[in-house]
Amino acid sequence: MKNRRSFLKKAVAGVTLAGLIPFAKSSNAGEVKITGALMHHVFFWLKEPENKAHRKQFEKAMNDLIRVETIKMSHIGIPAATEERGVVENSYTYSYMVMFDSLNDQNIYQKHPIHLKFIEKNSHLWDKVVVYDSVD
Amino acid sequence: MKNRRSFLKKAVAGVTLAGLIPFAKSSNAGEVKITGALMHHVFFWLKEPENKAHRKQFEKAMNDLIRVETIKMSHIGIPAATEERGVVENSYTYSYMVMFDSLNDQNIYQKHPIHLKFIEKNSHLWDKVVVYDSVD
Repeated sequence: MKNRRSFLKKAVAGVTLAGLIPFAKSSNAGEVKITGALMHHVFFWLKEPENKAHRKQFEKAMNDLIRVETIKMSHIGIPAATEERGVVENSYTYSYMVMFDSLNDQNIYQKHPIHLKFIEKNSHLWDKVVVYDSVD
Repeated sequence: MKNRRSFLKKAVAGVTLAGLIPFAKSSNAGEVKITGALMHHVFFWLKEPENKAHRKQFEKAMNDLIRVETIKMSHIGIPAATEERGVVENSYTYSYMVMFDSLNDQNIYQKHPIHLKFIEKNSHLWDKVVVYDSVD
């Protein structure tokens, strides 16, 4: 059970860090299967993935972007050092995953000034973007 | 705030449905930024995506697969009806996302009997698989 709890503790820590009230302080944690959500997962290939200034700018931009209020959950990452297998795509620079309650909330996000500013200020940094939207 | 709460309520409902104790009954919900996680996101293209028997088998198989105990969070989906844009990849049949606490937990998952059985019993159904593993 120790391992099962640790993930949720980390998720809760994220909430705390964001200045919000933790929601699971006394939780009896377990597996969480997310339902009723639209997952929007974007992979970015930067033009200069080794350029530290570009990376710094882009990381800040993604962290600003998740402030859009219709986003309910997020994860920002880079390729993991998992085993090399033919089916694993690890050539991207950044993974950006956000979850919404509904298609409508994603539509609000797409047109949100923060999102439009993100594209305007950062699109010159990337070479390629692939987006996967999925609903349960 | 109503919208912000609804997602987490749904997430909690998922926990309840799984027979576990809800962890956020009295939550003051807000945005959750997940940290300290390895996200394993797999897209499957079935050979016969319109075959109802194949879909039924595969959906059950994915739901059995998320019982592996190192999985801390999951989302199983199909392409969303989001706006057609050049960057959106919506040709896949199923999206399968699971989160782990660590690379080690993902390694345990890869070798887990439930996972090996999933591959053995279902790999004939798919034509293509793409895996993205990312860490924050």
